[in-house]
Amino acid sequence: MNISILSIGDELLSGDTINTNFSWISNKVSVLGINVEKQITCQDKELDMRNALDFLLSTKPAYIITTGGLGPTEDDVTRSSLFKYFNVEEKFDYKYWEKLKSNYNKMGIELLVSNKSQAIIPSKGKVIDNPKGSARGYWFHKKNTEIIILPGVPAEMKVMMEISILPILYKNLTKPIYRKTLRTTGYNESILAEKIREIIKEKNDCKIGYYPSAYGVDIRISSTSKIKLEKFYIGIRNILRDIVFSSTTDSIEKLIIDILIIKRKTISFAESCTGGLIANRITNIPGSSKVFSGGFITYSNQSKSKHLEISNNLIKDAGAVSKAVAKQMSERIREKFNTSLGLAVTGIAGPDGGSQDKPVGTVFISVSDKERTLVNKFLFGNDREKNKIKTSQAAFNMLRLFI
Amino acid sequence: MNISILSIGDELLSGDTINTNFSWISNKVSVLGINVEKQITCQDKELDMRNALDFLLSTKPAYIITTGGLGPTEDDVTRSSLFKYFNVEEKFDYKYWEKLKSNYNKMGIELLVSNKSQAIIPSKGKVIDNPKGSARGYWFHKKNTEIIILPGVPAEMKVMMEISILPILYKNLTKPIYRKTLRTTGYNESILAEKIREIIKEKNDCKIGYYPSAYGVDIRISSTSKIKLEKFYIGIRNILRDIVFSSTTDSIEKLIIDILIIKRKTISFAESCTGGLIANRITNIPGSSKVFSGGFITYSNQSKSKHLEISNNLIKDAGAVSKAVAKQMSERIREKFNTSLGLAVTGIAGPDGGSQDKPVGTVFISVSDKERTLVNKFLFGNDREKNKIKTSQAAFNMLRLFI
Repeated sequence: MNISILSIGDELLSGDTINTNFSWISNKVSVLGINVEKQITCQDKELDMRNALDFLLSTKPAYIITTGGLGPTEDDVTRSSLFKYFNVEEKFDYKYWEKLKSNYNKMGIELLVSNKSQAIIPSKGKVIDNPKGSARGYWFHKKNTEIIILPGVPAEMKVMMEISILPILYKNLTKPIYRKTLRTTGYNESILAEKIREIIKEKNDCKIGYYPSAYGVDIRISSTSKIKLEKFYIGIRNILRDIVFSSTTDSIEKLIIDILIIKRKTISFAESCTGGLIANRITNIPGSSKVFSGGFITYSNQSKSKHLEISNNLIKDAGAVSKAVAKQMSERIREKFNTSLGLAVTGIAGPDGGSQDKPVGTVFISVSDKERTLVNKFLFGNDREKNKIKTSQAAFNMLRLFI
Repeated sequence: MNISILSIGDELLSGDTINTNFSWISNKVSVLGINVEKQITCQDKELDMRNALDFLLSTKPAYIITTGGLGPTEDDVTRSSLFKYFNVEEKFDYKYWEKLKSNYNKMGIELLVSNKSQAIIPSKGKVIDNPKGSARGYWFHKKNTEIIILPGVPAEMKVMMEISILPILYKNLTKPIYRKTLRTTGYNESILAEKIREIIKEKNDCKIGYYPSAYGVDIRISSTSKIKLEKFYIGIRNILRDIVFSSTTDSIEKLIIDILIIKRKTISFAESCTGGLIANRITNIPGSSKVFSGGFITYSNQSKSKHLEISNNLIKDAGAVSKAVAKQMSERIREKFNTSLGLAVTGIAGPDGGSQDKPVGTVFISVSDKERTLVNKFLFGNDREKNKIKTSQAAFNMLRLFI
């Protein structure tokens, strides 16, 4: 099955916004084994949309998905342009308008007349629900192609795809491609490739790809045979073992929360160089309040001594970025919050603060429970934000192997 | 001047790679005032490239830039496909091949025969130097359009654009487009549009676009006349005033750091529902350690009473999510860290924990200095991660107007 994508929006063509909607949709449908044939980005102009749709329809894809331009302001012309293209009339959905008004009233916001565009529906074609916003989608049909029109706000587009579109695409699949992902962290792609070199020789019609990021390397394998894929998967898994933290799309912080809930353990964090990132990632997960009590961000040396009672002498002798300080930080935070586990990080995020001995990217991570404390040293790179992400990921990985 | 972009590569259409090349090029040329008319992503297939180029050429852009598919492996078919399209012969550049071989030998690498494709040049058209890799670019001409063919490796494409292409585009500019951005937060796009409705009526050849996200709404205006744009900009600015937090691409947290450094003020945070996000955003900014001492993440009620000394009775009577608790949190954290300012947030991020009185999305934010404390109540939506982002953004905005 072929699909094509039309991304509508001046902000994409001016380079102000990176088109992550396109790669998200492509990824979701490719996983189902659907071929994304082509993609066009066009401006918020009726003629450009018409030309782009004519071009995409010329190769007769099963589906065309458009994103963008359904908002309430005057630059949002997708609705009126495409209604004309598909030769349908605009109708006003009074019921939806009343519902919108009442929802907004509850939040203390008065709906403006400009928002009325959000209640316009076509005389023919379907309307697609938007559980996260006011701009609903539309579904038209032309020359054996289904055309799905979605808003450009990523969170809204994604939930609409997941609830209303992907299940239908899945149902209509003829020859699926099976895919599996092995999520790893702590090793780069060359080392992983070297470890599984022998297995790859017998990959038996399976395809393999490595997708590195600051969070680790995802290994993605695919095949048209479910059995061959499973055999290949087990082969890789048996070699990489503990290096693979997940075979689902779950994040490592989701995994940590799940394990802590099952093991009935609680945790607190003392963060220096990550500056709150570890707690932020954990509290993005619903239900984290069951296991996470809180933490201290001790960014300055003074706050380390005052709030975690690390002695000034130790900080002076060993340095704030040291094994000894990391160890005490994780032990003290556990005591302060009276949790089963304490996790601490201290390091040099950069760009300043490095030295010959401890260059930018030097990080110590420590995990403690009542009986024992583990401290590991890491050396990441020169990039401040990447260092924070890599530190948080390494911390979660240590925690996963500790508990 | 109009340009169009053709991005070639299966990895873009499978969603494995985000097309940052496109946004990078768009951004670079938009800043020069060049209009990016459209963009196509196509597979590594000769017919698809031909169709895409025919489509892009139909609107007669001054330039078409293609990226991708010039490497040495069998999936790289851009060179042979486009040579056919432009009706030119393949010639072998012996001199370049000798140079490549000698360069690789110096690095201890023996060049494979497959690399010979890197030394192929067209019988007509220009060759574009690649200072960072072996795949050179090409420059063809068809029907008043210049077609520039570049490799897809971002570092190589960028340096080739900067050295060989952008200076030429700049020289040939006839009618640049000027752009400005007004970054706002706290109001949705309909309300902003309503506020500046009168001004928009006299927008006088200027274009306007609204770009909403959980962080706020960016208003982007453009015009071919610098004077008209400036007038339009001042008109909007005079109405929106304090609602605009920046006219650069800087984030609000960068702005906060800049102001605090200038005013020689320090800050600490007490975070409940944001769970570390505020501190995380602040510590993403290099130099934040000059003004940020640290903070407490008091996620559980117990940690609020233990570490911030909020009385259990107050938490019981007013609730952990209340004006009174937010106020005390910001005052206590300021004292604990001995900073000029204290910022605190407490709220219900969701999906659980809401009530009739205080639904999910209810948030109190408090800012204190030595003399005064300000507390505001907010009601965001149902989405946990968005609530955290909106809370952090509202907190930074309150802080900006407070200091």
